[in-house]
Amino acid sequence: MNVTTIDPRDGRARPTDLTETDESGVETIVGQASRANQWLADLGRLGRAQVLEAIATSLGTRRENLVATAQAETGLSHTRLDTELTRAAVQFRMFAAVLRDGGYLEAAIDHAADTPIGPGPDVRRMLVPLGPVAVFGASNFPFAFSVAGGDTASALAAGCPTVVKAHPSHPLTSRASADAIEAAVRSTGGPAGVTSIVYGEQAGLALVRHPAIRAVALTGSASAARAIGAAIDERADPVPLYAEMGSVNPIVVLPGAAASRAEQIADGLYASFTGSGGQLCTKPGLAFVASDAAGDRLVEALRDKVTASGGVVLLNRRIRDAYEQGAESLQRAGARLAARPPIDAGAGFTVAPTLLEVDLPGLTAEIAEECFGPLLVVVRYRDVADLDAALAVVPPSLTGSVHRGPSDHPDVVRRLADVLAARAGRLVFDGYPTGVRVSWAQHHGGPWPSTNAVHTSVGATAIRRFLRPMAWQDAPEWLLPEELRDEYTAIPRRVDGRLAPGSDSHG
Amino acid sequence: MNVTTIDPRDGRARPTDLTETDESGVETIVGQASRANQWLADLGRLGRAQVLEAIATSLGTRRENLVATAQAETGLSHTRLDTELTRAAVQFRMFAAVLRDGGYLEAAIDHAADTPIGPGPDVRRMLVPLGPVAVFGASNFPFAFSVAGGDTASALAAGCPTVVKAHPSHPLTSRASADAIEAAVRSTGGPAGVTSIVYGEQAGLALVRHPAIRAVALTGSASAARAIGAAIDERADPVPLYAEMGSVNPIVVLPGAAASRAEQIADGLYASFTGSGGQLCTKPGLAFVASDAAGDRLVEALRDKVTASGGVVLLNRRIRDAYEQGAESLQRAGARLAARPPIDAGAGFTVAPTLLEVDLPGLTAEIAEECFGPLLVVVRYRDVADLDAALAVVPPSLTGSVHRGPSDHPDVVRRLADVLAARAGRLVFDGYPTGVRVSWAQHHGGPWPSTNAVHTSVGATAIRRFLRPMAWQDAPEWLLPEELRDEYTAIPRRVDGRLAPGSDSHG
Repeated sequence: MNVTTIDPRDGRARPTDLTETDESGVETIVGQASRANQWLADLGRLGRAQVLEAIATSLGTRRENLVATAQAETGLSHTRLDTELTRAAVQFRMFAAVLRDGGYLEAAIDHAADTPIGPGPDVRRMLVPLGPVAVFGASNFPFAFSVAGGDTASALAAGCPTVVKAHPSHPLTSRASADAIEAAVRSTGGPAGVTSIVYGEQAGLALVRHPAIRAVALTGSASAARAIGAAIDERADPVPLYAEMGSVNPIVVLPGAAASRAEQIADGLYASFTGSGGQLCTKPGLAFVASDAAGDRLVEALRDKVTASGGVVLLNRRIRDAYEQGAESLQRAGARLAARPPIDAGAGFTVAPTLLEVDLPGLTAEIAEECFGPLLVVVRYRDVADLDAALAVVPPSLTGSVHRGPSDHPDVVRRLADVLAARAGRLVFDGYPTGVRVSWAQHHGGPWPSTNAVHTSVGATAIRRFLRPMAWQDAPEWLLPEELRDEYTAIPRRVDGRLAPGSDSHG
Repeated sequence: MNVTTIDPRDGRARPTDLTETDESGVETIVGQASRANQWLADLGRLGRAQVLEAIATSLGTRRENLVATAQAETGLSHTRLDTELTRAAVQFRMFAAVLRDGGYLEAAIDHAADTPIGPGPDVRRMLVPLGPVAVFGASNFPFAFSVAGGDTASALAAGCPTVVKAHPSHPLTSRASADAIEAAVRSTGGPAGVTSIVYGEQAGLALVRHPAIRAVALTGSASAARAIGAAIDERADPVPLYAEMGSVNPIVVLPGAAASRAEQIADGLYASFTGSGGQLCTKPGLAFVASDAAGDRLVEALRDKVTASGGVVLLNRRIRDAYEQGAESLQRAGARLAARPPIDAGAGFTVAPTLLEVDLPGLTAEIAEECFGPLLVVVRYRDVADLDAALAVVPPSLTGSVHRGPSDHPDVVRRLADVLAARAGRLVFDGYPTGVRVSWAQHHGGPWPSTNAVHTSVGATAIRRFLRPMAWQDAPEWLLPEELRDEYTAIPRRVDGRLAPGSDSHG
């Protein structure tokens, strides 16, 4: 079956020369990935770092074509896509740095020694690649969470080839991204299959069931994660699933924050919930604002901005329909329409941003549900003491944010931070959860239903998802990986329980 | 329903004053665990280290009673149980050292900085406890993988209370272990619920379904892991499951090894597969021995030892029956009986050790199945070149071992190590997989069906199973955990990507 591409700006499907991958196609592609696995292993850390940098460069070289292709398939702005492509390249470069540092290997050496339970053998441990990884790319990040995204960057860094199930919202961008990676790999003398694509739902399921696939990474919905999890459970050998799902990302604006900078927060909130069409897993879906004069000012400013805003093109028909239905069902559940500009929907997937409002006693689990797209529910509270119970209604999320002002008591802030920390993976102070920094300390997790695992797809530790520990007991030195030999000191290692930083680190 | 205890030496059930935990009992116990959670968090790393050490001491103080109780419930030898209790105490002390070191927090600080995709906020990350953990203890380690085992030690270290489903093979040992922990916790001023027990299968399932339980650790069979996994999938918020399952642990004796030390290897193999009644997840179940004169000598020596051996008391009726059925079905599948002493089974769960033999071409998946208990299948090979294909029939395991002699070519050893590494978590050279060293570099994982996860229940990183990453973005310094403040340098941290070892580490 042929794969079509749809421009969300006009909603029209256009043919492509791509076809859905059939069973034998999946077999061929996974076979290539299995062979590429050995090549990646043989390269070693430093060799793989060079490949990652070549990929980053290749993405840059093809920037114009990649961004234009993505724009026609996603309707996202040129600026946004241009930045996202930079981010994707940054991710490959960051994992090159992670490889050079070598700490990710968690190399540890325990020399033979007497122990309280008898003579202990020499034990040396480090992490080794799992093998080929299936990646289910996201609709909303055609670069940074797709074929050339963080999953591929971290998996290749780990030494694991990826087979990506292309998202139907951007098949041509996926193809162009894979071509960019393939060109870079070829330029370093590598084989086919380091990163490949399959098209179609059936091909995606065939991937998950394939015995050579050793882990699955997904950015999608909780129901997609459950379906893929069920397919994994049917395997003779279930493999790890790393799922990034949805998130409501509550923001609490304390009274003092609104009193000191109502308009500024309104600007920030507006930018954060409407940017990229509100199609970000870190989009704030709920903002708690006090029912006082400053809070009124904040909401008024927000209402003005939303009323004056233009239409937003969403990624695809399904997302558009879910957005409209979500906006309706939140209102049926009791949220008041606070602002929504009159937008002529036209032929494409254009929608109007929506601002809803509810008084805290009316906040129900239904109203706290995520609505993907440019929609924000403002929850008006009378007393900060009521926030604890209200936040318990909000599904656990990737992030929780607090805006403070000079008049907000530190005890209130601390209490709020504790409540949010129990239900989120990242606490943001006086800022917005969108615009995730790509860096060593970053991560992208939160309790279910935001993610399903303790390791996440953003930040340096994303690589750990695709590694497993291996121990060597009383191994001859010549057989050990270089990083585990006594005289090798270039990387951080734990020797007899004591951490030794690498002599070459960032040298 | 009353809980009974059975002495495997006579097979008789005796009443206890323990009862199966009903639904309201589970509710009470999980409620206590949830409150204990806050106490463990408030203690901080160093406070928890003291609690762990108090538990180690308490186990030692009660040694005589604990070992005697376990002996009457498991039939394991006094020496074995005494050593196992020491190991359990060592595990608590090791995690106290892990806490003092602090590297397990993976503390990382990225100061605010300009990045290629715009200004980056200050991001700081470390691991935080998941919350109460349900533990399903093992039949075969009444101390080290049960109530006072590695799961509890690593979970408490992480800051997570444990609720242990007591194994029906040792309810009184479980109770006595929990009492030892409780006494230690009380001596440090702690509340009830830091480590509790429930009895009965229904109570175990109720635990897994309880919303306050945030992770499940299991040492048991693959089918138990699948059943518990299915119960977890039915939760509104599925939680991580860490399962340690079965393992065949192949040992390859290369021709040169047999030529140089046939009798010595026979002694080692015999001790390894019959020790603790062969009831160890690291018991070697398959030994590959060459079909030559030295190999014959090795097998002959092994046969003599098995023939001369006495009976072995297994842990319970189910394990005894499964052992006898396993030994029969391996023979039906084509393995020859090489040795089995005539043992009078008597009233208890006593069995005879069994040595089986098969020629390599006859090695099938059926014969490569794990048989828990004192049984070893010797596989005779004509050519080391045949071992690759033969090892592919063996289920992935916790360990793979190679015995080498002066005449074995390093290329053969390397090739074999590569084949085993792809299907095991620990490679053992010229030794035996049993007698797992407890140390920083150790781990206890292997591909399914040996474990289901990349993090395992032995070694310092076992703590990671019960932690999740948390990031603070632009947080005020006073609100940050101590370990993430700029001036705190006692623990290893990654600051702006650069690893700084802790100034206090092991100081």
